[in-house]
Amino acid sequence: MKKYTQIFQGTAFSSKSPKEVQILKDYLFCINANGMIEKVIAPEDTDYETLLETYQDKESFHRLAEGQYFFPGFIDLHVHAPQWAQSGTALDIPLYDWLNTYTFPLESKFSDLDFAKNVYQDVVSTLLANGTTTALYFATVHKEASLVLAEICSKKGQRGLVGKVVMDNLEQTPEFYRDADTQAALIDTEEFILAVKELAKSTKQGVYPVVTPRFIPSCTDDALKGLGALAAKYDTHIQSHCSESDWEHGYVQERFNKNDAFALHDFGLLSEKSVMAHCNFLNDNDADLFVETGTAVSHCPVSNAYFANSVIPIAHLHSKGVEIGLGSDISGGFSPSLFDNARQAVISSRMLEDGVNTSLPADGRGVPNSRITINEAFYFATAGGGESLSLPIGRLAENYAWDIQIIDINLPSARIPVFNSDEDLNDVFQKIMYLVRPENIREVWVQGEKVHSRA
Amino acid sequence: MKKYTQIFQGTAFSSKSPKEVQILKDYLFCINANGMIEKVIAPEDTDYETLLETYQDKESFHRLAEGQYFFPGFIDLHVHAPQWAQSGTALDIPLYDWLNTYTFPLESKFSDLDFAKNVYQDVVSTLLANGTTTALYFATVHKEASLVLAEICSKKGQRGLVGKVVMDNLEQTPEFYRDADTQAALIDTEEFILAVKELAKSTKQGVYPVVTPRFIPSCTDDALKGLGALAAKYDTHIQSHCSESDWEHGYVQERFNKNDAFALHDFGLLSEKSVMAHCNFLNDNDADLFVETGTAVSHCPVSNAYFANSVIPIAHLHSKGVEIGLGSDISGGFSPSLFDNARQAVISSRMLEDGVNTSLPADGRGVPNSRITINEAFYFATAGGGESLSLPIGRLAENYAWDIQIIDINLPSARIPVFNSDEDLNDVFQKIMYLVRPENIREVWVQGEKVHSRA
Ligand SMILES: [Zn+2]
Ligand SMILES: [Zn+2]
Repeated sequence: MKKYTQIFQGTAFSSKSPKEVQILKDYLFCINANGMIEKVIAPEDTDYETLLETYQDKESFHRLAEGQYFFPGFIDLHVHAPQWAQSGTALDIPLYDWLNTYTFPLESKFSDLDFAKNVYQDVVSTLLANGTTTALYFATVHKEASLVLAEICSKKGQRGLVGKVVMDNLEQTPEFYRDADTQAALIDTEEFILAVKELAKSTKQGVYPVVTPRFIPSCTDDALKGLGALAAKYDTHIQSHCSESDWEHGYVQERFNKNDAFALHDFGLLSEKSVMAHCNFLNDNDADLFVETGTAVSHCPVSNAYFANSVIPIAHLHSKGVEIGLGSDISGGFSPSLFDNARQAVISSRMLEDGVNTSLPADGRGVPNSRITINEAFYFATAGGGESLSLPIGRLAENYAWDIQIIDINLPSARIPVFNSDEDLNDVFQKIMYLVRPENIREVWVQGEKVHSRA
Repeated sequence: MKKYTQIFQGTAFSSKSPKEVQILKDYLFCINANGMIEKVIAPEDTDYETLLETYQDKESFHRLAEGQYFFPGFIDLHVHAPQWAQSGTALDIPLYDWLNTYTFPLESKFSDLDFAKNVYQDVVSTLLANGTTTALYFATVHKEASLVLAEICSKKGQRGLVGKVVMDNLEQTPEFYRDADTQAALIDTEEFILAVKELAKSTKQGVYPVVTPRFIPSCTDDALKGLGALAAKYDTHIQSHCSESDWEHGYVQERFNKNDAFALHDFGLLSEKSVMAHCNFLNDNDADLFVETGTAVSHCPVSNAYFANSVIPIAHLHSKGVEIGLGSDISGGFSPSLFDNARQAVISSRMLEDGVNTSLPADGRGVPNSRITINEAFYFATAGGGESLSLPIGRLAENYAWDIQIIDINLPSARIPVFNSDEDLNDVFQKIMYLVRPENIREVWVQGEKVHSRA
């Protein structure tokens, strides 16, 4: 019989398809030395009893307690790590003012490595405690501080994809917070890519450099072009903001006479490994281009309520085949929890479908067929995020990483309301999605390693 | 010098006006034997030092630790206590189907007093743990089980306002779940009122019977009329649902050829002590009638996203002078937390203001001037709720009840992101409103008694 490094026994939830959640009742998950799920075994499978007998008294065997469930770790496709320091504040002004009055001054402070370390350690720990096992981060323009963030992810065991932000357009960036010049921006980015690739050699769960033009307004044409070339040269992930608000959308139209998607594509910034935040104002041609290039949308529903002037038609984009994941967008979004964002994704989609203005007739109020279910929101937070990043994560299935949250619904201080011992597991799943609190997340594992515990 | 039963020292937040939060930095709150705030003393007041010296070594003196703050206890104006058992499920179907397929079958099970006790104990404890010190409850049609809920509130120290639900309209209620007949509904209601008034004699924090026609569709004209008379006879609170969804709104128009507000008024059901849930489709005449009669709106933003087909124009109604509080509407809304509902109230109002449909031009997408701030959402959850119920609660001010939550922002397992020791207290307040978790709520006090503690 094959030897495994660890075996986990319990009931798990994992996406079968975007609309269907698979319930794996009392399964065995067999993990190898690389932290990958090598085998998933159902109770009716022939090996089940043999494996159980062989492993159940060993230290490498983990059985869930009554009321505990495995969830895939969440994949947050859009986090501004430095903005954690202002999370929950300044949500009352438009995007342009928010950037210039609050956000750029805060981010400029990350030239101070001690301050950076303090905030970055806290945000990585906080995301892990909220069940986020993989995060796609914007850091700041500072190469050293951005590397500090990558190192903290590496040490704390989170799968971090980290971008040194590029902002070199003198007209759209403040003097106190921008790259020294275009060339410096590109050199720093290349050095950052190499440093993170070096760090990756000793990081079991992976750490990845990300080419990160903040968004088109912040960057010169030369920077955008150079970044596209660097991404191709090193085969890196790429992230930016795309078609977010009326203002931003209008700015790009004026500068390039096209939408963000086509402008980004011209610079080589749309690829299988590209993730674009927001994308509220993507039209159908833009969406087709996303599908062709394999570019994913990071949907940030909490943030959008404050800064995007609209609800993204996520069901429509998904039906066209666009890859979609969820993002917290700290601190445009206040919550570090993808549970919160999954809930808001459903709520926002309902508001788009039904409309909002009571003075309009029901049949002219909303956009039909816009709703998504909580199953789909779960998919976006897990499997969809994995597909967006082209990484084997987000599913509890063979050849995926063992990235999980252990949820306890019987915690006395935060009981999930299940009053029947034979409650349908679909209902248990929905109650978890809607009601879980960070304290219900008892353990978090990434790539087969325990990285957070409340035990 | 006056003797106080207890003195609390610390920094508190309390509404000064709907838009302004007062910060009471290092104040003393002097509580009398009835659990009322008898005196609020600022550090610069003459008595401050004397009181401190007299009390600070006594057991009756409580000083907040570094990073802890007083918040007024929250007032939840709309909770279906029995529905806690299905919270987080069945949110994918319209109101009418939701009632008949899930909700009425569940509520009918509350004829079983053991089941009722089990669920009711859990929901009251859960609301307290979420900082809700006063709750306005719908129970079920069952008189005995409704009384069990009132008794549990009384025992656990929560200020409960409890209604035995009336549903006697044969056409709009299922055979397995309705009052025996109109007369029985009114007799049971009267007996329930008397029993709760008896219980109130031994309940320090108060417990109140509430006249509760479920909503117009569930009730006959005779029942509505009889309930109006009972409310007048016993000077009770009144609650119902009003102008919630397109379907419900249309039903009442068809039956009475008027909107809910005027129909309810005809039956004597609008008064200073009336609280009506939802009210999304209130027009300006309805709103004027609410102002004239002192009727309050219980705004349930999470629930509305699923069942109300719209966003209530809450800023507009408030500007007209309507009293407004917040409701969780368990389980139309999944969350037992008014922090969650305050956040959603802001988010929903932003969506109403900006609109949702990206295919419309920005200036034709939303309803201008619809947004509310987090300060206003806080007001609705506290002072606005108190005004709605005409009770001296929801403010940390003299002659108000000592109903509070103690919030800890430095809890290691759920740190609120404050990185500067001199962080502006307005920012601290916003971060608390947006980021607090139940575990940050270390203690809850009602009427001067500690009713929840995580210490
Ligand atoms: Zn962003
Ligand atoms: Zn209700």
